[in-house]
Amino acid sequence: MGKSAIITVGDELLGGRITDTNATFLSRELRLAGFPVRRRETVADDPAAIADAVTRCAALVDVVVVSGGLGPTLDDLTRDGLARAMGVSCVRSKEAEAHLRAFFARADRPVNESNLVQADLPEGASSLMNDQGSAPGVRAQIGESTVYVLPGVPRELYAMTRNHVLPALVAHPARGAAPTRAAVTICGMPESEAGRKLRDLMRRGRNPSVGSYPGVSHIVFVIEAVDADDGTPAAELARRDVAEITARLGSAVVATEERQPHEVIAELLIERRLTVAVAESLTGGRVADLLVSVPGISAVFKAGFAPYANEAKRDILGVSQQILDDHGAVSEECARAMAEGARRVAGADLAVATTGIAGPTGAGPGKPVGTVFLALAKEGGTDVRRLQIVGDREQVRARATMTALDLLRRAVR
Amino acid sequence: MGKSAIITVGDELLGGRITDTNATFLSRELRLAGFPVRRRETVADDPAAIADAVTRCAALVDVVVVSGGLGPTLDDLTRDGLARAMGVSCVRSKEAEAHLRAFFARADRPVNESNLVQADLPEGASSLMNDQGSAPGVRAQIGESTVYVLPGVPRELYAMTRNHVLPALVAHPARGAAPTRAAVTICGMPESEAGRKLRDLMRRGRNPSVGSYPGVSHIVFVIEAVDADDGTPAAELARRDVAEITARLGSAVVATEERQPHEVIAELLIERRLTVAVAESLTGGRVADLLVSVPGISAVFKAGFAPYANEAKRDILGVSQQILDDHGAVSEECARAMAEGARRVAGADLAVATTGIAGPTGAGPGKPVGTVFLALAKEGGTDVRRLQIVGDREQVRARATMTALDLLRRAVR
Repeated sequence: MGKSAIITVGDELLGGRITDTNATFLSRELRLAGFPVRRRETVADDPAAIADAVTRCAALVDVVVVSGGLGPTLDDLTRDGLARAMGVSCVRSKEAEAHLRAFFARADRPVNESNLVQADLPEGASSLMNDQGSAPGVRAQIGESTVYVLPGVPRELYAMTRNHVLPALVAHPARGAAPTRAAVTICGMPESEAGRKLRDLMRRGRNPSVGSYPGVSHIVFVIEAVDADDGTPAAELARRDVAEITARLGSAVVATEERQPHEVIAELLIERRLTVAVAESLTGGRVADLLVSVPGISAVFKAGFAPYANEAKRDILGVSQQILDDHGAVSEECARAMAEGARRVAGADLAVATTGIAGPTGAGPGKPVGTVFLALAKEGGTDVRRLQIVGDREQVRARATMTALDLLRRAVR
Repeated sequence: MGKSAIITVGDELLGGRITDTNATFLSRELRLAGFPVRRRETVADDPAAIADAVTRCAALVDVVVVSGGLGPTLDDLTRDGLARAMGVSCVRSKEAEAHLRAFFARADRPVNESNLVQADLPEGASSLMNDQGSAPGVRAQIGESTVYVLPGVPRELYAMTRNHVLPALVAHPARGAAPTRAAVTICGMPESEAGRKLRDLMRRGRNPSVGSYPGVSHIVFVIEAVDADDGTPAAELARRDVAEITARLGSAVVATEERQPHEVIAELLIERRLTVAVAESLTGGRVADLLVSVPGISAVFKAGFAPYANEAKRDILGVSQQILDDHGAVSEECARAMAEGARRVAGADLAVATTGIAGPTGAGPGKPVGTVFLALAKEGGTDVRRLQIVGDREQVRARATMTALDLLRRAVR
């Protein structure tokens, strides 16, 4: 079974000035490639500390990936650290120099000696092409272990991992089983409720593993399977979990893959040529923003309204003064009138409306903070839903946004 | 000078299933407390690996903070790992048991033996009260080094760091100088342009350090100073940098502290009783969403419009058919008419409008993707601005949102 280790280099990491997302990315990619990560270290821009970490990790695992400290400035010391771990000096690499000169020529910038220092690699190491930035990567062998050094800029690191590291791992003799990955996206059901329904599938140590990851307007369940001891293939185990999760969560399932619900909804609206409008008091434009983020939406999105003041609800959407007087702006009646008004004013096939009390103030008798009414108007009638959301202003607005999208999804699917 | 190390424990970290934000938080807090972090390690839920990391770190630094693996399940093995590093066994701690029983009594849940395993601490270690969850923390001494073990749940970790670790560090004899922190928030100037104007202040190794952190609608420059070798106090150095940055970035400065511009704008609107409306074609509700996220905004926010279709611009905001025919929806004339229409229809003192081509399609002659027009209507006239934004759909919409907020800020400040 293949094993790997990750070393991230940089004072800005140790200082807590940035979060080490490179470590997360590399951990996931190496695991999915059949080389689970056994340890991670973060060290300062200091050749001795880098050499120490490389030496220790190379003795433990088949593959070590080091990120950061490859730039042209004086505090970029990873090349020196690697050379120490290898017991060699740095020498100018013809290949890396050619790569650097080509990069600067493409960018139409002059090359000077301070840039060329990036081509000084440990003797015996090879250079890895970086097509997104100036710093070449490095590959070296220390005993049985292969060491890859990649730039710390995430965009460059991601590309070089995919271009240089992962392809080499596919052919590596120590490679273990790569997990099979599947996903189910749901919308309109709280994470806690979905978690309760899937509790037995989500326990630690189970194969497949099932984890939940909340998004802006949805939750993704990621399933990862490896071949079972009884011989059942990973793909079959993953397929069974997808089917089981889909059966248990029913109509909350948006897709049996990782998707953004607002994209799925926008695609359905475009495909079916259904035009849409939104009227958002509580959510103040967030549902519209999500729909409008999808390219091509202009074919079906007619208009959004955020009629916050009562007179705006009345004058712009035609909510009657009597509804506002008798039931208030946060009421089933107002939500219904807002959705129907938005549909009529915008001339749309469908309209969704939100109104509610986001807090921290604004609660009234029988309407505590978190009281939310949503309505979906379509030909043939309007559906209204009442929610009582526990949480702060942001949580109330986020949950209402997710539910509004979900009403729309159920109307178009 | 004090030194610290961080060990984060957990298979879910090594698997890349979650990002190690605890390491970022601890790194920053320890540095600001005068104990800069010298190394970080992440290890599996494995007592041998935990013991190895604790032993190595304790030999190097004054303070070691370990996060994770304190729960009641079989894969919570940090207590065992710490005991191995100390060369002792775990024994039931009366203090930790009392804490656990009190926690479960407060939560009105029964305590059973599997929960009480969380009170089995290495002999000679002491228990740290956790008022947010069930797992007590642990404090132990290994040689000259103090080891703190905290739960991995971020909310619990944050509280226990503030309650137990940081207060002890204030009195620690090895404590180094804690940096003085200050910030400047700007809006309406791209990060690259601001970075160019501050290049000399932002170079690595300078005291104070100046770093930039982009937010949703703004950029924060964080200044951290330590006492200078020439005796100038850190606070004075930070004050000078704040003044210099403010002078160089001029009217882009929103606040000489870390603030969200939409909050600053909302507060100004509320304070001055200026009512506001927004008309967002390109940004489709995002400006409204940000303003509406601020509690108390209902006193001044009248209405938002996302008139995406041309007929919506015409019928709802009164943009003339002639403007749409002669200049198109993406034009200075249309932006102006949208802002003035929104101001009139909503009956607001101020209105801001956005229209543009977010891409990837929709470009026309003389109007490439990224062409954006913004308008701010107020008593006495309407200002219009044209931008040409380079980037994808999301980048165009984000930059337009930021600029719309900035127009509003400059109108109310």
